[in-house]
Amino acid sequence: MVTSPVVNTYPLSSYTFGTKEPKMEKDTSVADRLARMKVNYMKEGMRTSVEAILLVQEHNHPHILLLQIGNTFCKLPGGRLKPWRKCKLAANSPSLQPNWQIGECVATWWRPNFETIMYPYCPPHITKPKECKKLYVIHLSEREYFAVPKNLKLLAVPLFELYDNVQRYGPVISTIPQQLSRFQFNMIHT
Amino acid sequence: MVTSPVVNTYPLSSYTFGTKEPKMEKDTSVADRLARMKVNYMKEGMRTSVEAILLVQEHNHPHILLLQIGNTFCKLPGGRLKPWRKCKLAANSPSLQPNWQIGECVATWWRPNFETIMYPYCPPHITKPKECKKLYVIHLSEREYFAVPKNLKLLAVPLFELYDNVQRYGPVISTIPQQLSRFQFNMIHT
Repeated sequence: MVTSPVVNTYPLSSYTFGTKEPKMEKDTSVADRLARMKVNYMKEGMRTSVEAILLVQEHNHPHILLLQIGNTFCKLPGGRLKPWRKCKLAANSPSLQPNWQIGECVATWWRPNFETIMYPYCPPHITKPKECKKLYVIHLSEREYFAVPKNLKLLAVPLFELYDNVQRYGPVISTIPQQLSRFQFNMIHT
Repeated sequence: MVTSPVVNTYPLSSYTFGTKEPKMEKDTSVADRLARMKVNYMKEGMRTSVEAILLVQEHNHPHILLLQIGNTFCKLPGGRLKPWRKCKLAANSPSLQPNWQIGECVATWWRPNFETIMYPYCPPHITKPKECKKLYVIHLSEREYFAVPKNLKLLAVPLFELYDNVQRYGPVISTIPQQLSRFQFNMIHT
């Protein structure tokens, strides 16, 4: 049997957080977003997107970095499958480049239709899914600089808060604890 | 980025199913089971158990083999971390040995106390968990013989039936679709 993959996790206090210009949502409603998705699909085919799972530790328990929009909605940092430098948390300055490395894919989610619902498999009889989203573990180094868009708030949320909390975090983020359970977390105290 | 691991899945009809002597539960109630768990913990320390995810395909969609006890309760084939030949579905005859191979660990669940509830992480402040259960994908070959204990029923349940169905399958089995979403299923039509 293969041994568990290891993720080194550093305290949140190891990292530096700055700000950058606001990253506004392109759409003002879910209906607008789905309409734009349809237009893009006609032009470019299935959307492929990536989201990043950035781990830190507090009190010996793994926490995930989430971006909060407004007072309730949380999302993972991520974007389209373009160069990852465009990740929502990367700094714009060339002197503040990230030291992190893209790690294991932990989940793939499929959007069968131009609707908000996604599934962790391509449902039977769906031959043309509209989006495929992959979640990757990011291996952070001991020092990182994160640039948080001014309109978003960065939160470090413990796994025990995400687990079984679909109401607050939705189906994708609330099952990250299960997807990470095969990893061994190496808690580094700096 | 690493490519997705591949699981070859064969139709259920590729496999042969026989029976073997009933494999009765050792306990007649949850209270009895937890009491016995406590006694064993005193003798042997943390229980380590393994469960097997056996995949087949039907109508181009992955299905998981589950054992049904009575009319409702379902479980994965598995057991203690003893030689896997003792797996609940292995035949007793030396001429009918399995061709499967133990594959990737997809999840680890922890039981912090002598209670039924388990978590996909060791909760903070728990220094002596009582059980650690690991789920492994089993790579089946084109031909396998399964011996099903006479008191159990073997079911092939599609991923879409397990997904978001904690009421019917419980927290461990109902999130297997998410844990398998990083795999690429190679559907083999024989």
